[in-house]
Amino acid sequence: MPAEWTPHAGCWMIWPERTDNWRLGAKPAQKAFAQVATAISRFEPVTMLVNAAQYANARALLPLEVRVVEMSSNDAWARDIGCSFLLSKTGELAGVDWPFKSWGGLYFPWDKDDAIAEKILQIERAKRFRAPLVIEGGAFHVDGEGTALVVEQCVLNKNRNPDVRRHDMERMLKDYLGVSHVICLKNGIPYDETDGHVDNLACFVRPGVVLLSWCEDPSDLHYQISREAEALLTNAHDAKGRKLVIERIPMPTPMFYTQEEAEGVDATASGMNRKAGERLAGSYVNFYIANGAIIAPAFGVETDEPARDALARLFPEREIVMVPAREILLGGGNIHCITQQQPKAI
Amino acid sequence: MPAEWTPHAGCWMIWPERTDNWRLGAKPAQKAFAQVATAISRFEPVTMLVNAAQYANARALLPLEVRVVEMSSNDAWARDIGCSFLLSKTGELAGVDWPFKSWGGLYFPWDKDDAIAEKILQIERAKRFRAPLVIEGGAFHVDGEGTALVVEQCVLNKNRNPDVRRHDMERMLKDYLGVSHVICLKNGIPYDETDGHVDNLACFVRPGVVLLSWCEDPSDLHYQISREAEALLTNAHDAKGRKLVIERIPMPTPMFYTQEEAEGVDATASGMNRKAGERLAGSYVNFYIANGAIIAPAFGVETDEPARDALARLFPEREIVMVPAREILLGGGNIHCITQQQPKAI
Repeated sequence: MPAEWTPHAGCWMIWPERTDNWRLGAKPAQKAFAQVATAISRFEPVTMLVNAAQYANARALLPLEVRVVEMSSNDAWARDIGCSFLLSKTGELAGVDWPFKSWGGLYFPWDKDDAIAEKILQIERAKRFRAPLVIEGGAFHVDGEGTALVVEQCVLNKNRNPDVRRHDMERMLKDYLGVSHVICLKNGIPYDETDGHVDNLACFVRPGVVLLSWCEDPSDLHYQISREAEALLTNAHDAKGRKLVIERIPMPTPMFYTQEEAEGVDATASGMNRKAGERLAGSYVNFYIANGAIIAPAFGVETDEPARDALARLFPEREIVMVPAREILLGGGNIHCITQQQPKAI
Repeated sequence: MPAEWTPHAGCWMIWPERTDNWRLGAKPAQKAFAQVATAISRFEPVTMLVNAAQYANARALLPLEVRVVEMSSNDAWARDIGCSFLLSKTGELAGVDWPFKSWGGLYFPWDKDDAIAEKILQIERAKRFRAPLVIEGGAFHVDGEGTALVVEQCVLNKNRNPDVRRHDMERMLKDYLGVSHVICLKNGIPYDETDGHVDNLACFVRPGVVLLSWCEDPSDLHYQISREAEALLTNAHDAKGRKLVIERIPMPTPMFYTQEEAEGVDATASGMNRKAGERLAGSYVNFYIANGAIIAPAFGVETDEPARDALARLFPEREIVMVPAREILLGGGNIHCITQQQPKAI
């Protein structure tokens, strides 16, 4: 699996619509997703996958350069339910289709989401590898040079693969991602309903350099978690045997569901039933690396500017584009969660 | 619009499923469509468009080399509801999206079918021209050198464009297909529920040569129609000013719905309600020109062999592949009706 900074053929996204996760009939989320798609499409082709009933609406709300393709889905997390694209040694496109069980059975149903990876690979006429491991695309990062980065709390959670032990998990990641070394952090950021996806905690900036969502407030749960991750990374090495350089980006000012936001979501027996005052799992490492740009979330809080500065320093060769992303965060994830890069085949 | 014999990038088809048109839950038709897709995929890539609920079944019944793509449809006539692909002078792909009204309102509903051309063009990222004329892809042929061939009974039928006169119809065909001359035959083959699509009556074999479905039985309605078409073609010229060479292919032995076939179709208020003894609109000119092959219908009647001989003589440079097609004919069309070529962009 190539690193996310490898040149892309394009980016896949999925149109949000389920009203038990996205407030006000998903209209604010649709606007936010459209802004992300528009931002990315300045740098690479974007495909938006849309359920049949929303096709005409999505086509009307998206700029013409965004390709709109009909595809059934339960929700809108292209990172977690899309395939993980691979390139063969001769540059041919292929992809891993991970069994998807809705983050341990969080949102019912998930049958359409589980079918999406295969459908994307069919469109691309690319070879498909159906993996035996229940995992989501947001649960791992790769550096493109043989290293994967994961969080134990998530990938060894009993709600995913109750019978899979650490050694087997690492074996399957090596087999399907084509990596030779797995770095395993312990806990993800607090309040993350994914059980700690690594893409909210840390990511590779380039081989040998990891960016960590950092907390300076000792009263915050993430204070301890970010230090624990730093310690593990300090003692780790990558597949090439390098010690890692650890960079920090501030975690966002703590954010919470407002009463109005919580009330806009349909209550259902099987949905998330958001409540006012619940903490949002915000993180600035949840950005997308596009061709020539970083598409990063802005939350309208005071940490946005320091985060932008950190990204500008870490990616001097890329344009930093911050997109308002609170509406995406309300659904449980962010820009990295709703995007899936397709590397350029050779 | 390039002629059908121009090299293709591939072929689009749509999976049959509606039980008020296809008998026995569409299972025999699905088998027949799969045989056509398999035959074509020996010569060029095939994409099968499938409603969400049938996706897994279609994927299971089709060979792996056929690409399966989710797309909503009402029925399965890729020729009539797919876009008509164009190539620009510089070889770029584009397509015409004709408003589709179900052959004068024959089968209700048709909203999903009308949306298909746009969705195909989105997948191909090709420019779309939405035309003002209600017409189906099976209602015209082009020779790729400026000539279109149509049937007046169909294209000027009051059930399509009540306010469009002949001159305006020709103007719109010229504008959207890029032709400069329209040859207008008078009547299509009898018992054709499309009001006489030209693709059951006649087609271009190459520029200057037209193949006509021919009837030798004076007691058959088609006897007079084939002679009338021959007379019109004899007096016609093409866009280059050439007189036309007229070739004949026998019409099939008359065929009729059996009691068993008619009983296998769901009766509905808005469907076709097939009846035993109704004549089927069979024709051997309803074939598909693939890269290096002719994919033609076989009906299991004594005219199959003379038809094959005629095709072999007319297309000496192509392999003639006859596919059992009675099950397709029971739904109202044939191999040309269920296929749509996409020319190779340059």
